[in-house]
Amino acid sequence: MQTRARDLGVVIGSLPTGALNAITDVPGVRVGQTTVSDGDLQTGVTAVVPADVTTGLPAAVAVGNGYGKLVGTTQVDELGRLETPILLTGTLSVFRAADALLTYLLDRDPRATSLNPVVGETNDGYLSDIRRRPITEQHVLDALTTASTDQPEEGCVGAGTGTSALGFKAGIGTSSRQLPAGTIGALVQSNFSGTLQVLGTPIPAPPRQTEPDGNSCMIVLATDLPLDARQLGRIARRAIFALGRIGSDYAPGSGDYAIAFATSYQPPMRDDDLRPVFQATLEAVEEALLNSLTAARTTTGFQGRTRYAVPHDLITAARDRAQRPSSPTA
Amino acid sequence: MQTRARDLGVVIGSLPTGALNAITDVPGVRVGQTTVSDGDLQTGVTAVVPADVTTGLPAAVAVGNGYGKLVGTTQVDELGRLETPILLTGTLSVFRAADALLTYLLDRDPRATSLNPVVGETNDGYLSDIRRRPITEQHVLDALTTASTDQPEEGCVGAGTGTSALGFKAGIGTSSRQLPAGTIGALVQSNFSGTLQVLGTPIPAPPRQTEPDGNSCMIVLATDLPLDARQLGRIARRAIFALGRIGSDYAPGSGDYAIAFATSYQPPMRDDDLRPVFQATLEAVEEALLNSLTAARTTTGFQGRTRYAVPHDLITAARDRAQRPSSPTA
Amino acid sequence: MQTRARDLGVVIGSLPTGALNAITDVPGVRVGQTTVSDGDLQTGVTAVVPADVTTGLPAAVAVGNGYGKLVGTTQVDELGRLETPILLTGTLSVFRAADALLTYLLDRDPRATSLNPVVGETNDGYLSDIRRRPITEQHVLDALTTASTDQPEEGCVGAGTGTSALGFKAGIGTSSRQLPAGTIGALVQSNFSGTLQVLGTPIPAPPRQTEPDGNSCMIVLATDLPLDARQLGRIARRAIFALGRIGSDYAPGSGDYAIAFATSYQPPMRDDDLRPVFQATLEAVEEALLNSLTAARTTTGFQGRTRYAVPHDLITAARDRAQRPSSPTA
Amino acid sequence: MQTRARDLGVVIGSLPTGALNAITDVPGVRVGQTTVSDGDLQTGVTAVVPADVTTGLPAAVAVGNGYGKLVGTTQVDELGRLETPILLTGTLSVFRAADALLTYLLDRDPRATSLNPVVGETNDGYLSDIRRRPITEQHVLDALTTASTDQPEEGCVGAGTGTSALGFKAGIGTSSRQLPAGTIGALVQSNFSGTLQVLGTPIPAPPRQTEPDGNSCMIVLATDLPLDARQLGRIARRAIFALGRIGSDYAPGSGDYAIAFATSYQPPMRDDDLRPVFQATLEAVEEALLNSLTAARTTTGFQGRTRYAVPHDLITAARDRAQRPSSPTA
Repeated sequence: MQTRARDLGVVIGSLPTGALNAITDVPGVRVGQTTVSDGDLQTGVTAVVPADVTTGLPAAVAVGNGYGKLVGTTQVDELGRLETPILLTGTLSVFRAADALLTYLLDRDPRATSLNPVVGETNDGYLSDIRRRPITEQHVLDALTTASTDQPEEGCVGAGTGTSALGFKAGIGTSSRQLPAGTIGALVQSNFSGTLQVLGTPIPAPPRQTEPDGNSCMIVLATDLPLDARQLGRIARRAIFALGRIGSDYAPGSGDYAIAFATSYQPPMRDDDLRPVFQATLEAVEEALLNSLTAARTTTGFQGRTRYAVPHDLITAARDRAQRPSSPTA
Repeated sequence: MQTRARDLGVVIGSLPTGALNAITDVPGVRVGQTTVSDGDLQTGVTAVVPADVTTGLPAAVAVGNGYGKLVGTTQVDELGRLETPILLTGTLSVFRAADALLTYLLDRDPRATSLNPVVGETNDGYLSDIRRRPITEQHVLDALTTASTDQPEEGCVGAGTGTSALGFKAGIGTSSRQLPAGTIGALVQSNFSGTLQVLGTPIPAPPRQTEPDGNSCMIVLATDLPLDARQLGRIARRAIFALGRIGSDYAPGSGDYAIAFATSYQPPMRDDDLRPVFQATLEAVEEALLNSLTAARTTTGFQGRTRYAVPHDLITAARDRAQRPSSPTA
Repeated sequence: MQTRARDLGVVIGSLPTGALNAITDVPGVRVGQTTVSDGDLQTGVTAVVPADVTTGLPAAVAVGNGYGKLVGTTQVDELGRLETPILLTGTLSVFRAADALLTYLLDRDPRATSLNPVVGETNDGYLSDIRRRPITEQHVLDALTTASTDQPEEGCVGAGTGTSALGFKAGIGTSSRQLPAGTIGALVQSNFSGTLQVLGTPIPAPPRQTEPDGNSCMIVLATDLPLDARQLGRIARRAIFALGRIGSDYAPGSGDYAIAFATSYQPPMRDDDLRPVFQATLEAVEEALLNSLTAARTTTGFQGRTRYAVPHDLITAARDRAQRPSSPTA
Repeated sequence: MQTRARDLGVVIGSLPTGALNAITDVPGVRVGQTTVSDGDLQTGVTAVVPADVTTGLPAAVAVGNGYGKLVGTTQVDELGRLETPILLTGTLSVFRAADALLTYLLDRDPRATSLNPVVGETNDGYLSDIRRRPITEQHVLDALTTASTDQPEEGCVGAGTGTSALGFKAGIGTSSRQLPAGTIGALVQSNFSGTLQVLGTPIPAPPRQTEPDGNSCMIVLATDLPLDARQLGRIARRAIFALGRIGSDYAPGSGDYAIAFATSYQPPMRDDDLRPVFQATLEAVEEALLNSLTAARTTTGFQGRTRYAVPHDLITAARDRAQRPSSPTA
């Protein structure tokens, strides 16, 4: 399996993780991914599939920077309800993926005449020939039907096959935090600009790795905590805030979105008790972002362009530095 | 041509119309429509095509009730910018239409790798077999490439082929208002519930014509007035308010949206001077909605269902009543 | 007591009212008002006081047109929670009223160090010397401490003492609708421009009664239905839509707001079941607005300006016209 | 004068500052402050005063977490316009400050009958007897009339007299960044929880300094760049994101707001050119926050509570650590 931040001795925050340290720690949540990695095409589909979504689940979207094509937002805002699995893919394939999701759902509900797919994207056009819109219906159906509760693969897989972040090859990452009352899991498709920060140490990418326009980050949060849509919106905003912790520059051309859902309707907890939930969100998203980098491999794609993985020894050096004391007498 | 409200002697408001009393009165704005009317299929595509959209135009979306799948909203919100023609179609075809719009745009810009299509929809599933997703890429390309500055057809045409409003057959409608400084044009795809009101007289539909779920209204506004995105948002909200004037019940399952754009960037007018612009918007939208009804024809579609056009003599009777004096001595 | 729309034979909509046809039909909701009517000063305070607000109640604000100084909105948006009684007053007195509400609340909770007053206003400066900021702490305390579950006075009372709407003297109005599962009550402070419409008949005000700038409408909704904050936001938006039913022109300088609260936290109803709740809201707000006009009396105030009440015979004429058939053969 | 981050050798980011490294580097922007420091009372007023605000300036508010009583937001949202100086103070004094601002403005405009004060607050109730609402009209008038273009005092002054951040005594801070086309200045009232991070090194406060509830941060941004209200909203959101850079935990009970204004109406720059403006914002806000801490002095206030200033040697140690190389071979 890929290298994760904790494999390198980097621990984000103080809360315990779930058993898999993944979004699939949240009961009933499955993840499926289809990877397209073939020369000029470096792209794919990642599906986050709740157990019982047909009758709707509490959900909310936070827009950090709305330079993106996230499908399905206004209805989620109005009804506070997720009614489909969530897909992630490359920018120009977002509508084909949404249409394929309709195929999947219409097949399962012969009476459905109105559905609100939620499909996010980031622009993987630096490493992948995005204009070919390579995602087919079958790619989407494969991601949906193979979704499992296993620990999801990370890095250059699914919707992260062709993405980059902070100057390095990035991709899919996941993490979770366990609270006494339940679990919060995060899954990210990282593709944004800035300077990587690991435990407070900046790790600038080599300058030749200039970011193209259209950088973005999609963040999916799942939880079995008793939260309603309004509270999930508050949590989704923390996911956006977490981007800064790892060095996002929140660029004007970035589509930064978080969508948070709960796995069932329950009487919601008190807002005054949300502090650990917010902390869990900040930690899980930061670690998922870091995992998306540590798990990624150097990749050559469209027009022979290469994006390099972050050297793991830079990360362990940052870890060592963070563990050394910093005192006035040092 | 179809019957318009003014053909029946009904004049909405007091401001003068443009030459065509249509959205195409706004300089440079073209409309193209593809109609699919074939037994179980009663649907289509309507395209509103600004003259120069590739570098972006000031634009804003207003969400009256977000039970809909309008594509492209978050980026319009963030950037205040429309960068594609606007399409309207039936609900489950919205993603195929958006993808076809990408085809159209990618063909015209060989360097484009990120585009934000704006595609609205209402649910025409009562008269059309919506689950077949009948809209093809060719339907969309036809609407775009045949777009003209002529007065658009109204009623059972394009995206209005299969829609109904206020219990009657409805569809596409358009109207405009001329102010000293410029023109405001409206085009609607009407498909919502309530009780038709014409000049203050309710015209209830026969009770057998129950509305299905998923009623909605899409409203497109174009103007050459000097307005920025924030001001266009204020205007778009007035378009939502205008729905009530004709009898919308603002039902919970309705996707009611307005998108307003200006045909160029200009130093914006003062907000204190917007009063006539708001009045023009309210009038043009109400008249466009009424035109969508008067122009529609009784239609039989999916599973033999029939939706009846509003009898024109009920409208002329309402007109006559409105012209009779109402005084305490009457 | 003042004349109400139903006293003139005008019935809005089809749903039954509560026993008082007032916001105080909602169990536990009290209303208190202080009237300042003394020559150049025509203003006051209206307080809507829920039974148990100290631990918070589900609540939401809808902004129809944000040209107003409504205090307390961002915290209501964030937490979905009302934690104080709601006050209405004249524009420039809004902060003194909010501060007086703090006095009231701090006296009742010796440990409170953070409170979020909700205070709305409309501009009564046409009939009242608004620059004198005449509302004192005592006026506010009187409104709060005398609040009762009786049918509230309407018209020229409390925060409506100096307000006008649709060219006529207006003020406070209230109404309610009874659904099987509970009650919705509305209370309005009407002060907006447009042309009065009664059952579809326009009743233009005499032209000399030009509206000053700064017209507005505050709408308070209370309910004991099981609704959460998100749903109350949907309902509050319908209150804004109801303004159009009585002839609002939604002018750019109007501060049009609705705040809706529920009287307890309960597991919320399904959004799919909200249709009658929306209908009840539209009906109650329209009738409350009409009551604010029928109950008002011709008033002379600041600088000898006079605002005339709407002649009741014009309303009964509109009623008669609405009851006459309108048919093609007429 | 007080110690600033740069006095300790800490430089945030890479862009040059303005001449004063303060919000008053923005032409025409003045700052005035009234400090109330007397035993149980540790509070005050800070005023940010644009040169020509009476006809309005482009402005926008960003809500990071809406647990606060910021006055004036809905009208700024609607009109994109600031029409008064901006005040900051302690929570329960916000309405008295707003009313005093009315006094100031009404005196200067004998015809004004509607004004939209913008007044923010954070809760200084740990060090100050907040329930006494100690801010008087004179305090506000003093801040307004003594406002100057000098470098503002920082730390325990004005609205920052009684505030704390990240476990240490904090207060007012300011900074600026100079771009080729103009200046961005930030002024903060810091009062939020989390763990201080200086150049990547965490500096936890001693555990006895537990934060009370009601922590918050107000951020004011001024610029002479050609930006419209929508763009200022994008910039204000970056100010919220900057809170994370210094260690905010974005707690649920924090009122985190940014208000950004431009000093004149100009044809706006292109959104595609905003990247350096966003960077300047992130840098200026982070440095202003740090200055609010370095300039603060240990303060004893209400009920003998003491809040300690951050030891400067911890900050210089963090600086030294950041300047040491971190390499895989270290």
